[in-house]
Amino acid sequence: MPATTANSLPAFPSEAFDRLLPWAFSEDEGHGDITSIATIEESAVGRAHLLCKQSGVIAGLPLVERVFRHRGFHPSIELRCAEGADVESGDVLMTLHGSMQAMLVCERILLNFLQRLSGIATVAREYARALEGGNTRILDTRKTMPGYRALDKYAVAVGGGTNHRMGLYDMVLIKDNHAEACGSVRAAVDKVLARYAGTYTVEAEVRTLDELRSLLDSSVDIILLDNMDDETLREAVDIARAGAPRIKLEASGNMDLARAKRIREFGLDFISVGALTHSVKALDISLDILGEGRK
Amino acid sequence: MPATTANSLPAFPSEAFDRLLPWAFSEDEGHGDITSIATIEESAVGRAHLLCKQSGVIAGLPLVERVFRHRGFHPSIELRCAEGADVESGDVLMTLHGSMQAMLVCERILLNFLQRLSGIATVAREYARALEGGNTRILDTRKTMPGYRALDKYAVAVGGGTNHRMGLYDMVLIKDNHAEACGSVRAAVDKVLARYAGTYTVEAEVRTLDELRSLLDSSVDIILLDNMDDETLREAVDIARAGAPRIKLEASGNMDLARAKRIREFGLDFISVGALTHSVKALDISLDILGEGRK
Amino acid sequence: MPATTANSLPAFPSEAFDRLLPWAFSEDEGHGDITSIATIEESAVGRAHLLCKQSGVIAGLPLVERVFRHRGFHPSIELRCAEGADVESGDVLMTLHGSMQAMLVCERILLNFLQRLSGIATVAREYARALEGGNTRILDTRKTMPGYRALDKYAVAVGGGTNHRMGLYDMVLIKDNHAEACGSVRAAVDKVLARYAGTYTVEAEVRTLDELRSLLDSSVDIILLDNMDDETLREAVDIARAGAPRIKLEASGNMDLARAKRIREFGLDFISVGALTHSVKALDISLDILGEGRK
Amino acid sequence: MPATTANSLPAFPSEAFDRLLPWAFSEDEGHGDITSIATIEESAVGRAHLLCKQSGVIAGLPLVERVFRHRGFHPSIELRCAEGADVESGDVLMTLHGSMQAMLVCERILLNFLQRLSGIATVAREYARALEGGNTRILDTRKTMPGYRALDKYAVAVGGGTNHRMGLYDMVLIKDNHAEACGSVRAAVDKVLARYAGTYTVEAEVRTLDELRSLLDSSVDIILLDNMDDETLREAVDIARAGAPRIKLEASGNMDLARAKRIREFGLDFISVGALTHSVKALDISLDILGEGRK
Amino acid sequence: MPATTANSLPAFPSEAFDRLLPWAFSEDEGHGDITSIATIEESAVGRAHLLCKQSGVIAGLPLVERVFRHRGFHPSIELRCAEGADVESGDVLMTLHGSMQAMLVCERILLNFLQRLSGIATVAREYARALEGGNTRILDTRKTMPGYRALDKYAVAVGGGTNHRMGLYDMVLIKDNHAEACGSVRAAVDKVLARYAGTYTVEAEVRTLDELRSLLDSSVDIILLDNMDDETLREAVDIARAGAPRIKLEASGNMDLARAKRIREFGLDFISVGALTHSVKALDISLDILGEGRK
Amino acid sequence: MPATTANSLPAFPSEAFDRLLPWAFSEDEGHGDITSIATIEESAVGRAHLLCKQSGVIAGLPLVERVFRHRGFHPSIELRCAEGADVESGDVLMTLHGSMQAMLVCERILLNFLQRLSGIATVAREYARALEGGNTRILDTRKTMPGYRALDKYAVAVGGGTNHRMGLYDMVLIKDNHAEACGSVRAAVDKVLARYAGTYTVEAEVRTLDELRSLLDSSVDIILLDNMDDETLREAVDIARAGAPRIKLEASGNMDLARAKRIREFGLDFISVGALTHSVKALDISLDILGEGRK
Repeated sequence: MPATTANSLPAFPSEAFDRLLPWAFSEDEGHGDITSIATIEESAVGRAHLLCKQSGVIAGLPLVERVFRHRGFHPSIELRCAEGADVESGDVLMTLHGSMQAMLVCERILLNFLQRLSGIATVAREYARALEGGNTRILDTRKTMPGYRALDKYAVAVGGGTNHRMGLYDMVLIKDNHAEACGSVRAAVDKVLARYAGTYTVEAEVRTLDELRSLLDSSVDIILLDNMDDETLREAVDIARAGAPRIKLEASGNMDLARAKRIREFGLDFISVGALTHSVKALDISLDILGEGRK
Repeated sequence: MPATTANSLPAFPSEAFDRLLPWAFSEDEGHGDITSIATIEESAVGRAHLLCKQSGVIAGLPLVERVFRHRGFHPSIELRCAEGADVESGDVLMTLHGSMQAMLVCERILLNFLQRLSGIATVAREYARALEGGNTRILDTRKTMPGYRALDKYAVAVGGGTNHRMGLYDMVLIKDNHAEACGSVRAAVDKVLARYAGTYTVEAEVRTLDELRSLLDSSVDIILLDNMDDETLREAVDIARAGAPRIKLEASGNMDLARAKRIREFGLDFISVGALTHSVKALDISLDILGEGRK
Repeated sequence: MPATTANSLPAFPSEAFDRLLPWAFSEDEGHGDITSIATIEESAVGRAHLLCKQSGVIAGLPLVERVFRHRGFHPSIELRCAEGADVESGDVLMTLHGSMQAMLVCERILLNFLQRLSGIATVAREYARALEGGNTRILDTRKTMPGYRALDKYAVAVGGGTNHRMGLYDMVLIKDNHAEACGSVRAAVDKVLARYAGTYTVEAEVRTLDELRSLLDSSVDIILLDNMDDETLREAVDIARAGAPRIKLEASGNMDLARAKRIREFGLDFISVGALTHSVKALDISLDILGEGRK
Repeated sequence: MPATTANSLPAFPSEAFDRLLPWAFSEDEGHGDITSIATIEESAVGRAHLLCKQSGVIAGLPLVERVFRHRGFHPSIELRCAEGADVESGDVLMTLHGSMQAMLVCERILLNFLQRLSGIATVAREYARALEGGNTRILDTRKTMPGYRALDKYAVAVGGGTNHRMGLYDMVLIKDNHAEACGSVRAAVDKVLARYAGTYTVEAEVRTLDELRSLLDSSVDIILLDNMDDETLREAVDIARAGAPRIKLEASGNMDLARAKRIREFGLDFISVGALTHSVKALDISLDILGEGRK
Repeated sequence: MPATTANSLPAFPSEAFDRLLPWAFSEDEGHGDITSIATIEESAVGRAHLLCKQSGVIAGLPLVERVFRHRGFHPSIELRCAEGADVESGDVLMTLHGSMQAMLVCERILLNFLQRLSGIATVAREYARALEGGNTRILDTRKTMPGYRALDKYAVAVGGGTNHRMGLYDMVLIKDNHAEACGSVRAAVDKVLARYAGTYTVEAEVRTLDELRSLLDSSVDIILLDNMDDETLREAVDIARAGAPRIKLEASGNMDLARAKRIREFGLDFISVGALTHSVKALDISLDILGEGRK
Repeated sequence: MPATTANSLPAFPSEAFDRLLPWAFSEDEGHGDITSIATIEESAVGRAHLLCKQSGVIAGLPLVERVFRHRGFHPSIELRCAEGADVESGDVLMTLHGSMQAMLVCERILLNFLQRLSGIATVAREYARALEGGNTRILDTRKTMPGYRALDKYAVAVGGGTNHRMGLYDMVLIKDNHAEACGSVRAAVDKVLARYAGTYTVEAEVRTLDELRSLLDSSVDIILLDNMDDETLREAVDIARAGAPRIKLEASGNMDLARAKRIREFGLDFISVGALTHSVKALDISLDILGEGRK
């Protein structure tokens, strides 16, 4: 999913986003923006720039209008940057024109969202670029902020990452505890297939080469090679490719950009990185009001 | 607010937290944890440790039980660490005993919350320690994840930081745009006081020493010295202390731990740091299942 | 806040109002206005007057359109009176033109709201007029109907009153119980300042002149002189003005219009009156349908 | 419905009440009772009296516990008065024992509810007493605060009044506009019966004796004699009783206690009074904290 | 209520319907229609027919647009059939033109609703036709799908049936258990009238001719003759008509179309049929996409 | 999934069920069960049987207690039948003991749910029995009542059927329209795999043998043979088994019990039947109150 192709942009998760908006305003605006009410006339209008103050990838532009609309405001918005674009410090993302009070009330909320999503997309693209040219894709995890699953995964996809399962419900992922409860990871895989009759994709986590070998003649779709050192990981890939070329391979654990680059040669299908969404550094964006006038 | 005094712990924001829970389960569990349903018997019970894998400060322990309860589970929970405690890698935070399926369904949700809050508290305490012994306090901002305002600010307080205003509604903060709309920051301050008749605390942001001087005989309660370099900042404090010792002083902009230490001598009342909540690094915590049995 | 200045009208609390609307219709319309359904054709249209049948102050005009819109109706509305205007019996507030069924379904709901808000504004203005020319303002309290806080306080402001704190969260008000818990009202004031570091306005209630004196060199912003007789009240003001001219003074307890007039000379900043919102007399307003036609 | 018979007490409308509670706390407590948090230790406990400071009728006692429970508090509550009882100034309604913070956070909310409901019950009983001994009952109307329909009508019933229809949905009431749309009130009555086939009680409003006569051989169940002067009203009753003894009769318009007493001889079945719920005078009740201790 | 008269169509219960829509999409679309997202471009538009594949009665046409609108789609819709019309297999109900993804996402939801409502209307009309020409009407019951009460009853009315009470709240229906609790059905009737003073329609169920006779001089409005065989039923009608011609009569129990035809001569006012709504056979309707184009 | 194995019972979808409960009571009880309120004392208690009046399969027993609990009632419940059991007319499903009013208020709601779910389970088991001994499983579809997806599918599983995908989100199903948009069904399959990288199970619908053949060397997991006559269906299975034994096969269209039996020899993996959930016949169950007493 090359991030530079407009067509491949994921759909903005409007429904999930809109559910957060009432709380966003409730917790931030409460009974009113008392400062703006006292100092700015309701009829005052003005222009503002949404300005990027750091290089990175922009994700979340569609939310800006939704924030205003939710609050009953309708500024005119001139987009000057595409969703998913690489931006530099000083780039103007959009120009807004409308009620000054609207801009002041919505400023922090839209920035708080936009800075997180762009921060996620920025790092996802660093990984995607590091793996470019090979067949290995970068995956996200379920380590997202509760309430932000769809938004965080959207930002990963905007950055050029690939989304792993959305939740516990849309794909099977057999981990250590499941394997133990069934006696072995292979027993767990068989149990899952007996129950769901092939209606879900099945992935199983292995921690040793023996566990890996036990799955090669099963119907598992993906094997997750968890917490292996580089050497073991390379060997695991070789074993799996030889014994079951049909099965896809994912690596996880202790992953950072340097290691991702190092293991890109191993021939993995996926590398998953929890930090993409659990440790997000906000991209620095600000709303700069340019001037004002009277309606 | 020394974090080691049990009495000074803020109240856990249960209401705000509980509003997030339905979404947390809806987005993660959806129509069911299909892996656990297929591999683990509903009657299986087990024990687990909540284990810290990195040194830091723990914030959010009360949420663990709420997560289980919301989903209808009631594991027994033995606390082995106090809210706000400094922890080391390897420390067991609590021991859980109950349904295996319960623990697997709730694991990711409770960790996603707990790791964010503990990550915030950890950094807040680093700042608090850096300022210890002086009269300068570390403040948070409104740069929190929408929906997480109360939780993020709770974690700051657990770490030893002080909470700035909760939102736009409970304190006046006059910024550049408000000042411009009124002609000057002083005019904005006067307008605010005329309207609210002293029923709100009033803070005003200044960017120059002239703006600062214009407020010294006003009724403003706090002056925010925004984006000044060290030298200007020191001069600003001296001017304000001489002219209006009653007014409190806050510095913000380009703040990091090193700079906070550097300017602690200036005699500021507050230093505010957006990164405390807008760029959070999750503290590494895991739920390790220890064994299992039959009911 | 002179009610005759259009600019000073408070913003109608749309969000708080809109939350009440679903219940309003659910409890009143339920599964349908069975009388109108059976007797009036869905296509029938007509005109109606919103008519004032008693002199007073109108508050709540913006809600009329919201009631119709919430229910999916869009009558044309011609305003013939401004929010906050003084009206006489016989004055037409607005002319409506649209679906007859719409008007009959919405009539009672909009009148129930409008009559309460106008009733509150009417009495608030009586107090405001009684104090006109002096520096004493009339304040409301937290004695509002649960769910109506924002609406009731809006009506007070439309009438010319000033809003006291919105709730327990946006201003400190130390009462007898808090004082007792801390040993003295002064101790309570100091404790509050230590915790919030000046980020909230602090008011403290005193019942004796000694309590009053104990606060004069504190950082309290407002002192509430509660339940004092006229003589003590006058003395309290004199003591406070002499000892701490910076501190604002509020009187409460056993307040009615006559007493408010009597004590306006004392030089208080505020007089607060619970009855403004806890004992409201509806202003008599009716919706009179004028005729009808076919679409 | 004599209020002194325990059996005849209406059921407290818990569901309707509980829907108001989240808003009550949201608007009043918001992010926290900052005064109590700063001045009272979370572990402090105490005793309080709910004290009546004016004579009247108590309605709403069951809500007190619901308010505390909703907020997660469980004080022990010793009832010292029965729902619907006549009380005097100085009577203790209940004694509470529990967390001081709980009492301070819930105090205003429970009083705001209780004072309104008791205010309604007090006046309802004055009317009920005025009509005692005859066959005329006092009815309420739909002039209740939106969101409070069930609560306001509950209070009327506790006071000894009888509830008219709950809303537009559970009984037919043909008013002037419906009559006009059908050509005559009689035509409207017939149309209603044709549609509902007798599955709803049907009441029709008349304004003249001719209209009244036109209904005497119809299947209408109740006739509302609206806005008639005493003389016409008496004549209307005589005409109706002679021509259709089966039909019940209600009078409304310009009703106060004096007039209710005056017309009690006429033999009406019902007198309806909008002011019972649209213009409520709060009964003066307070929560007095008696002392405190340590847990 | 002849279904062929446009005027007599009941109002579509929009509010009840709209409450179901969020769940409908939440449970069916979840985090997205992954098939359409991957195979159809967001910009693709097309035309579709809503096609009836079985003869019957159409109920629910207004819901089609609401389903699209709820999801933010606005296809153009050309109606080719009226609500309540008799349709044959092959009839086109409407032509749609708009986003292909919109049609695929909404298809199943709108069909699931429409097929149920049309299935109900179809059978209701079979009964209504069977009773045509007489004075007996077909009634529904409270045996509807929870959440679908208003919709199911709407469909019955579209088909030509008459709605019995909406719920437990808008009409009294004394059944066996109530009678037993009061000693006899007559005692229950009297108790009800004493309490509600004639403000609700009162129906009582009888199972024997003696019970029937005991009610003939009461104020009951309707008598339900439950589970009687044909012979007893005929006798019951004769007894009631002779003794109390004013009282309406309803029969229920073991009702099917054949029996309804058989007993139509008895002179009953109502026959109620639970199967109308508790055992619904979906009418076969499909959404056929006709072609597509590019925007 | 043999229904007689207790272990294989699906988990009752409590969350989905509980969301329906507020509406169930709101639409049925509304402002109160006026009949029971007037005729039965609040303190009256009694016993009742939940009685099956028709042979079939019971699904939904866990909901009975949830209905009472939601309304605040806690009758004692003695189960006399297991979820999923085959029952005969006259079998007592459970014995209840508790408040008479509770049983009367909850009766219809719990029966409306229970009768639908048991009706679905009854037919699902007829299909499951018809296919017993072979390898073909019966599948449900997305033709469920909006809001009832989880409940309807639960009942299918209790009856012995297998659940197809839960919604549009958890499995890919390429239908005619998707194939057409991509040029061919094979192109659609490839496009899906390119996008999701094997993280979802992929099923594709074919209508001809040529379409079938085009998929045999693709990575599709399941092929749906739609609307084929028996002869073509048999040939399709033979072609697929010979060319791609790994791919699972499902048949749909014009399915009834007789045909299911006829084609069970063909060697299909799945037969899907929309009528399982779109045309449900309620199983006849009643709540019979046995007697009463005083508390």
